[in-house]
Amino acid sequence: MTTTLHPLLSGRWSTRAFDRNHVLADGEIVRLLEAARWAPSAGNSQPWRIGVAVRGTAEHAALVDALAPGNAVWAGAAAALVLVAAQYVGDDGAVRQWAEYDAGQAAAHLSVQAEADGLAVHQMGGFDADRASAVFELPEGTRPLVVIAVGRRDPDAVLPEPLAARENAPRTRMSLDEIVLAPAPTALPLSA
Amino acid sequence: MTTTLHPLLSGRWSTRAFDRNHVLADGEIVRLLEAARWAPSAGNSQPWRIGVAVRGTAEHAALVDALAPGNAVWAGAAAALVLVAAQYVGDDGAVRQWAEYDAGQAAAHLSVQAEADGLAVHQMGGFDADRASAVFELPEGTRPLVVIAVGRRDPDAVLPEPLAARENAPRTRMSLDEIVLAPAPTALPLSA
Repeated sequence: MTTTLHPLLSGRWSTRAFDRNHVLADGEIVRLLEAARWAPSAGNSQPWRIGVAVRGTAEHAALVDALAPGNAVWAGAAAALVLVAAQYVGDDGAVRQWAEYDAGQAAAHLSVQAEADGLAVHQMGGFDADRASAVFELPEGTRPLVVIAVGRRDPDAVLPEPLAARENAPRTRMSLDEIVLAPAPTALPLSA
Repeated sequence: MTTTLHPLLSGRWSTRAFDRNHVLADGEIVRLLEAARWAPSAGNSQPWRIGVAVRGTAEHAALVDALAPGNAVWAGAAAALVLVAAQYVGDDGAVRQWAEYDAGQAAAHLSVQAEADGLAVHQMGGFDADRASAVFELPEGTRPLVVIAVGRRDPDAVLPEPLAARENAPRTRMSLDEIVLAPAPTALPLSA
């Protein structure tokens, strides 16, 4: 395969081994938020809403408590937990069809910036939505989607099994022809 | 502001001025698809489904016809149109809560790779979903979300107003404190 992905994409993976002594500088947090802020969105509606809880704060402790136990065991070590929510009802009362899609884009942009900054991120869907919403007093019409652990990877961090084994498991994906909807008449050249 | 975004994020913007003579090499298309393929997703469910229509094919013509008129006027000039859909019902029949969110991430990864390759992308929500679905024979449980124009920007492309004026309009976003859900006790440092 001659198709080499940009290293910010090919190098990204979702570790669970975070350095529990690592601290994010204020400017680093702002830069991650700026990356999300400049993502594209439907009609520039910018439906993403983002909460940041830095390790050591009451909000962080409450957010760790809201995580599924299998996530709480490792995610609390990361320097910060970032809640990404979608405002799926606009201020004009109209439902935003692309709110979740666009929130995913903003989170991806944040992740790319994190990778560029030498940071690791791991997105989690396993958390109690009501409790996570309460931490940041999410307004009505806003749905929490993921909590993202952001920090520095510590390859020596001790993880319980089966999490330790997963750190070394190869990344896997479906093949391209399973995700590409190629109409028969013009089948795509899937090997380049 | 000391927060400098990575140029792949800060340099991205959604042009409407595409070079109608530019052709994407097969390998370039595969690389864009690979970028989407390696995006993260809930439980590695990989709910994105992607259709590619290269300019000059019957599928491309049909997809241009499915676009809202305000998009069709410029988007057909791009070398390819890429339909991104979310398979929101898994093969096991379970609804995938994060299907649209994850599809957004895949599209963002594709966009970052495009930027790295010197390509321009412009995502569109304005299209006839049924007709776009028909072009790629989208299976049940799959929802088309966006059509992405991918190609090379041509700064000399002639656009009708008001599109020509929009090419030169500054990019705008809400301020960080409008999107950040900062709990009062630990307000984030929003200027670094």
